[in-house]
Amino acid sequence: MATQAGEKDYKFGPWTVHAYEVFAATELSYAFVNLKPVVPGHVLVSPARVVPRFNDLTAAEVTDMWLLAQRVGAAVERHFKASSLTLAIQDGPLAGQTVPHVHIHVLPRRAGDFEKNDQVYDAIDASAKQAVPL
Amino acid sequence: MATQAGEKDYKFGPWTVHAYEVFAATELSYAFVNLKPVVPGHVLVSPARVVPRFNDLTAAEVTDMWLLAQRVGAAVERHFKASSLTLAIQDGPLAGQTVPHVHIHVLPRRAGDFEKNDQVYDAIDASAKQAVPL
Repeated sequence: MATQAGEKDYKFGPWTVHAYEVFAATELSYAFVNLKPVVPGHVLVSPARVVPRFNDLTAAEVTDMWLLAQRVGAAVERHFKASSLTLAIQDGPLAGQTVPHVHIHVLPRRAGDFEKNDQVYDAIDASAKQAVPL
Repeated sequence: MATQAGEKDYKFGPWTVHAYEVFAATELSYAFVNLKPVVPGHVLVSPARVVPRFNDLTAAEVTDMWLLAQRVGAAVERHFKASSLTLAIQDGPLAGQTVPHVHIHVLPRRAGDFEKNDQVYDAIDASAKQAVPL
């Protein structure tokens, strides 16, 4: 059964994501605002269960998380008047993961948002390094 | 019912991916080698159906494609003695997508593979721009 967004707190690795930061949730996954967005509408989608790696997820969790990301991506793209999305998992420390809890970066992309298209990833990394406890 | 890898050709946007390039396949998805890998083991996972955007996929396609990517990611990470993965969809032209057909980049990540972690994305873009018809 689906849960309502904003009903309860979640764990994001060692941190707490407060109910008011969670704008969409299902039984197995939740979507929340990134405290240091690198573009307007930059959000994260995670499994509710705290696991570090994508391969740790059950088939039900993979499915649920990516179907939520699909809905969330369509919503933020429309809301932020974008026409593309960057969808990325930094799966493990050597891929730039800083919080040991699977999460999808969902970023609405608009013309000219970065001088070079892929500077978005440098910005994600710089943002993660400045992150403060939630 | 699952199909066997290497049995048939696929369309990747306007291009043909030949059976011998396909190393894993399900009924709805297929995995194939990237002609211009930016790291050893850089592969792509796509829906069999030619659609440009992630939001065009049915729930069954999203599920099937990401479960295949999970299996493929675990396999290439092990085979290439990596310990992390970059998993990314450039969903639309403004996100760097060059072939109008949904595809997940799966890249095994190893210590020191790029001087700066996120140079992997510049390399993906540079590779796509050099791509030749399959």
